[in-house]
Amino acid sequence: MSGEIAVRSWVETANAPGGAFGIGNLPYGVFRRAPGKERPRIGVAIGDRILDLRVMAHAGFLRGLGEGLEAACLAQELNGLMALGGGEQRRLRERLRVLLEEGAREEAVLRATPGAFCGQREAEMLAPARIGDYTDFYASVDHATRVGRLFRPENPLLPNYKWVPIAYHGRASSIVVSGTPVRRPCGQLPGDPPLYTASRALDYELELGLFIGPGNELGETIPLGEAEEHVFGFCLVNDWSARDIQRWEYQPLGPFLGKNFATTISPWVVTMEALEAYRVPAAERAAGDPAPLPYLSGPAGLGRDAFDITLEVAIETERMRELGMAPARVCQANTRDLYWTPAQMVTHHASNGCNLRPGDLLATGTVSGPGDESRGCLLEITGGGEPLLLPDGETRRYLEDGDEVILTGYAERPGLERIGFGECRGRVVR
Amino acid sequence: MSGEIAVRSWVETANAPGGAFGIGNLPYGVFRRAPGKERPRIGVAIGDRILDLRVMAHAGFLRGLGEGLEAACLAQELNGLMALGGGEQRRLRERLRVLLEEGAREEAVLRATPGAFCGQREAEMLAPARIGDYTDFYASVDHATRVGRLFRPENPLLPNYKWVPIAYHGRASSIVVSGTPVRRPCGQLPGDPPLYTASRALDYELELGLFIGPGNELGETIPLGEAEEHVFGFCLVNDWSARDIQRWEYQPLGPFLGKNFATTISPWVVTMEALEAYRVPAAERAAGDPAPLPYLSGPAGLGRDAFDITLEVAIETERMRELGMAPARVCQANTRDLYWTPAQMVTHHASNGCNLRPGDLLATGTVSGPGDESRGCLLEITGGGEPLLLPDGETRRYLEDGDEVILTGYAERPGLERIGFGECRGRVVR
Repeated sequence: MSGEIAVRSWVETANAPGGAFGIGNLPYGVFRRAPGKERPRIGVAIGDRILDLRVMAHAGFLRGLGEGLEAACLAQELNGLMALGGGEQRRLRERLRVLLEEGAREEAVLRATPGAFCGQREAEMLAPARIGDYTDFYASVDHATRVGRLFRPENPLLPNYKWVPIAYHGRASSIVVSGTPVRRPCGQLPGDPPLYTASRALDYELELGLFIGPGNELGETIPLGEAEEHVFGFCLVNDWSARDIQRWEYQPLGPFLGKNFATTISPWVVTMEALEAYRVPAAERAAGDPAPLPYLSGPAGLGRDAFDITLEVAIETERMRELGMAPARVCQANTRDLYWTPAQMVTHHASNGCNLRPGDLLATGTVSGPGDESRGCLLEITGGGEPLLLPDGETRRYLEDGDEVILTGYAERPGLERIGFGECRGRVVR
Repeated sequence: MSGEIAVRSWVETANAPGGAFGIGNLPYGVFRRAPGKERPRIGVAIGDRILDLRVMAHAGFLRGLGEGLEAACLAQELNGLMALGGGEQRRLRERLRVLLEEGAREEAVLRATPGAFCGQREAEMLAPARIGDYTDFYASVDHATRVGRLFRPENPLLPNYKWVPIAYHGRASSIVVSGTPVRRPCGQLPGDPPLYTASRALDYELELGLFIGPGNELGETIPLGEAEEHVFGFCLVNDWSARDIQRWEYQPLGPFLGKNFATTISPWVVTMEALEAYRVPAAERAAGDPAPLPYLSGPAGLGRDAFDITLEVAIETERMRELGMAPARVCQANTRDLYWTPAQMVTHHASNGCNLRPGDLLATGTVSGPGDESRGCLLEITGGGEPLLLPDGETRRYLEDGDEVILTGYAERPGLERIGFGECRGRVVR
């Protein structure tokens, strides 16, 4: 169904080669037209437009899909849709595909329905879901090793790393959607005595986010083979980090104010179904690495799949904007290099009976790879040595005011439709 | 106004000496009469009864307090009431006091109003608020020192402790109200190889919780002198901890599955106003300790007040129940011994611009004191040495299935009305 290149849409811009939002993608988001006035509504990205699910439901295009599903499409956030099982979600997806594909019977009626579409340029994108809890993992062994080396050169990876999908709870209240300015945080910087002032080591982290679909009850676990049924879809995440605040505060209870001043997410949630063709077996573990414990293992394909998603970071400084230069790409990484799969993260999270709820956000932690081009944060790029040299001649050890960080993501392979994530942007302000 | 012993209520049980809920207390909670059927409603504890604010509002007893306040009293959780400023909250409190005090003009009408009161025994108590984010501090220097000694005998307190009010984000989804059974969690226990099985080191932690009232905008800080205006009130918190899971997972990002399987809170929220008479200056810092940084300091009384609240832990085992024995008190501590005040915790939390929202829960971390009788968790009591001996001859290093942990709290002093917190109970089940 998805991922195959044959299907085209009658929305012409959806067929542009290299576009993010072809008919095989159909990501969900929440938007409104007139900022501050129109009630937020759920939309689906198609080409350069958004299909308005509120209008679709009211105009009867979702009839027969079930009352629960229609009600969920009328909501102001995706939580209700996320709570539905995979069967209902697939029915909705199929209906949307049928409505939007080339030659669709409903094309003329849809074209004539007022408000059925909104241009993406005319829309204000909002946070896609009410996020109850936000959890951040540490799933890239390359990231953990490089960062660990800065703190413990002789022993970069802690003994638990290859057994436990390490994670911590982040802050839900300060999750903002792409485009929201990020204020440079103040905090205690290490020193003798420490000093409360603006951070001098502001960094980004390139991450993939997983939105939880149906949840589990408190006290119940989620077997690995069922874990993916609890994942609704993916977004991009920038886990902004003030390294100086973090370094001073993080022992013994982990990161807190060094992280919780802001986390930026992309507005479009790319579903599991859209990425079906981009499953790949998880990377082989290195010789000598332990096999995952039984609760994190399973027959091939059952929770052991990674996803072949390319993630990139670009930086645009104030000066680059003045010079009219394009943002400079400073990282390209792939989530297939992660040490733990999405299913393993979900299963581990619930392995003590912790309840996950629809709309909860799990992030992978910084996605890095083995190569120097795939270092997902400035701490990895510049931490031990030389600053980063940008194409206009500027250098950066950490972010400066006015810098904009742009995360992008996509899955593509010859013969398969490209699935894009759009952008996750944030500019540092004072 | 509050805290003075002179005022009595025409609700006779509110005047019982040593009772928790006299007319000077008036804590808020959420309850319903017929489990699963009646819509949850806000109530105020008075003696052995609950005044139903939903009925009060409908019957016109809250007239003139403002539409926002009346609407907040009709809600199914306290968030709306918490969001209002201190002025409005004081108006509501004053109205309730006038309605309930001895000689009140409205006594007869109130007595005749159907459903105005519900017996506490007839009520099912629910979580008082929708908790957006839950943060747990580490504010007891005695707890931090004792626990640190188990891990680092030569250097128990880390260098940041006396500068930074250390905290981490906990899990909001698994916060449950008193009386909810707590299932013993499974998890990875340290070993070679580690083993996924039921925890063998289940512990409680005695804590005080702070509910946030009015919040702050993302990017804005909260000056110390204004911090208390952002605190609505207090509850009891049991931060259940699986020490074996925690020990293996917690480096480098802090506690996760060792904590997030359950956190129990007491149902009644005791307001800041009720505790006004129990303010005490924060404990003097030890000679050689640094003064708090300027953003955490202020003139006396401005955010430098502690609260004189006694907290206790009792344990009741299966066998003690069979023998008809009373629960055994195993700890008595006081929040005046904490190293950081509630105001300092709030100000620190927002010092990087992190936004707090009405209904967010901040907990103090384990409340312990210098003496052996004031160790707020089993890790402190038995960690290095002998197990705890219970009055029936049983011993405990950690909790066993069937053990019930009962936290209580109160403020009392000669000549002042006693302010009780009620109970925070949880029984360990398999």
